[in-house]
Amino acid sequence: MKIGIIGAGSIGLLFACCLGERHDIYLYCRTEEQAAKIGKEGILLREGEREIRCRVRRSAAGYAGEDLDCLIVAVKSYHLPALAGELKKIPGRIPLLFLQNGMGHLPFLEGLPHRTLILGSVEHGAMRTEANRLHLKGRGVTRVALFRGDREFFARLAKGLEVPGFPFLVEDDAEEMLVRKLRVNLIINPLTALLQIPNGKLAENPDFYQAARKLFDEVFAIFPADGREETIRHVMQVCRNTAGNRSSMWKDLAEGRRTEAEAILGYALEKGKERGIRAPILETLYLLIKGLEREKVE
Amino acid sequence: MKIGIIGAGSIGLLFACCLGERHDIYLYCRTEEQAAKIGKEGILLREGEREIRCRVRRSAAGYAGEDLDCLIVAVKSYHLPALAGELKKIPGRIPLLFLQNGMGHLPFLEGLPHRTLILGSVEHGAMRTEANRLHLKGRGVTRVALFRGDREFFARLAKGLEVPGFPFLVEDDAEEMLVRKLRVNLIINPLTALLQIPNGKLAENPDFYQAARKLFDEVFAIFPADGREETIRHVMQVCRNTAGNRSSMWKDLAEGRRTEAEAILGYALEKGKERGIRAPILETLYLLIKGLEREKVE
Repeated sequence: MKIGIIGAGSIGLLFACCLGERHDIYLYCRTEEQAAKIGKEGILLREGEREIRCRVRRSAAGYAGEDLDCLIVAVKSYHLPALAGELKKIPGRIPLLFLQNGMGHLPFLEGLPHRTLILGSVEHGAMRTEANRLHLKGRGVTRVALFRGDREFFARLAKGLEVPGFPFLVEDDAEEMLVRKLRVNLIINPLTALLQIPNGKLAENPDFYQAARKLFDEVFAIFPADGREETIRHVMQVCRNTAGNRSSMWKDLAEGRRTEAEAILGYALEKGKERGIRAPILETLYLLIKGLEREKVE
Repeated sequence: MKIGIIGAGSIGLLFACCLGERHDIYLYCRTEEQAAKIGKEGILLREGEREIRCRVRRSAAGYAGEDLDCLIVAVKSYHLPALAGELKKIPGRIPLLFLQNGMGHLPFLEGLPHRTLILGSVEHGAMRTEANRLHLKGRGVTRVALFRGDREFFARLAKGLEVPGFPFLVEDDAEEMLVRKLRVNLIINPLTALLQIPNGKLAENPDFYQAARKLFDEVFAIFPADGREETIRHVMQVCRNTAGNRSSMWKDLAEGRRTEAEAILGYALEKGKERGIRAPILETLYLLIKGLEREKVE
């Protein structure tokens, strides 16, 4: 298959490498410079002790009319509005797969003319270390769910994308899929970014664990699910599975980048407000992260 | 006057230097080593561009029966219980002045046999940089109030202690005096320690300011006062007056020392509970600081 990927951050590069084993990859970078570097040197993927060099079919600074079987949008949520013009150039028959965190991007999707829109939730742990180098710290799955389009076409596409060791799991309910990840992000991201601790500490340090539980109570009130205890156990399981990892929010602040505070915390606060649920801890964490962003990001 | 001082941290050293201009100082240190160093080299006090060397009459590792006019207790609140035996050796006629943060030490004072017990609240900004060296970053006042004893004797003593440029202000209500400082500490200490920011940022960064206000609402509900706006203004004024300073809680964590989380946050949470007031932000900050303490303090 011919697969386009917009965005060459950690997720974009990861998908380029892993899907590249079986597919032709067209990687659209933000700058000509990064596109040229990847064209020349490929992408270096480290996993465990091993580092491999992955080649893409083409890397460029923008879409140039390629006839793609699927286009994966792997930019941060807050970059989507700037991408609206670019996406409108993509023919309506090409299916688009969106890999953003949070749920703030759903209204943006509504406005697109494309026939097939898919939402994805990535459970791999990857970290970009240079413009064309990344470290895959833990493999998981990519969950996908249909947002708009034909269900059978979608199921065939998801099967077609899959590469051994890089599975795609089809989910029925797109919203429930995103909410499940959002709950995890709402606990792990702000606390680890603020405390500058790896994910595992939230499960391991009894005081941090208790704080995470209190935050969870607010998150669960805004985004309820069937089993309360099961849901918090899932969050803690993710902390343990990614024990040594730095959360994206911590990395963003440490590297002076804008965080996903709006897409994750801002979105939850808005939903809480709509539903008349007070969330003082969430609100405070949101303000503290926004304040740190103001200090650290120019 | 003959003034004893227990504790050679930043506050103990500051009082030894400043009161030493007019009085004979007997400084009781925790270790023989520090006592010897101070005996030999004196205390080095930096203020602005100037550094002066202050001499004490005697520095020792413990009280040896000196006939003091006043004994100042300048250890952290959590060190008081370990000091009970030592304090009981001090004759009951010697007035004791306690300079701890928070209010958790009041029950400890109840148990002492001394005739005159005084509470103090220090508004100077000082930072110890070595065992016998400190930096006085901003002068303020020392507020004092009688906890037990004769009011006239106390007023004369407070006047007698005073040294030009190092004033003692007599307050009528000991509890109100401590609560006023506690409110300030409850806002500044946990937020600056967690965010690793100097005090001024809480007034200057609009997101931090908003978070501080939300925390203030909880603090004010537990420890109300006459004017709400006036009270938050006072807290922010302290932030601006000490804009460049690192709070003691931040310094404690950075240097791997135990913090005053119990005396400050733990005390407020207990009072909140007694009064049936929910304080989720305060509670979360308490847990996060305790968790950091667990990580950083051996």
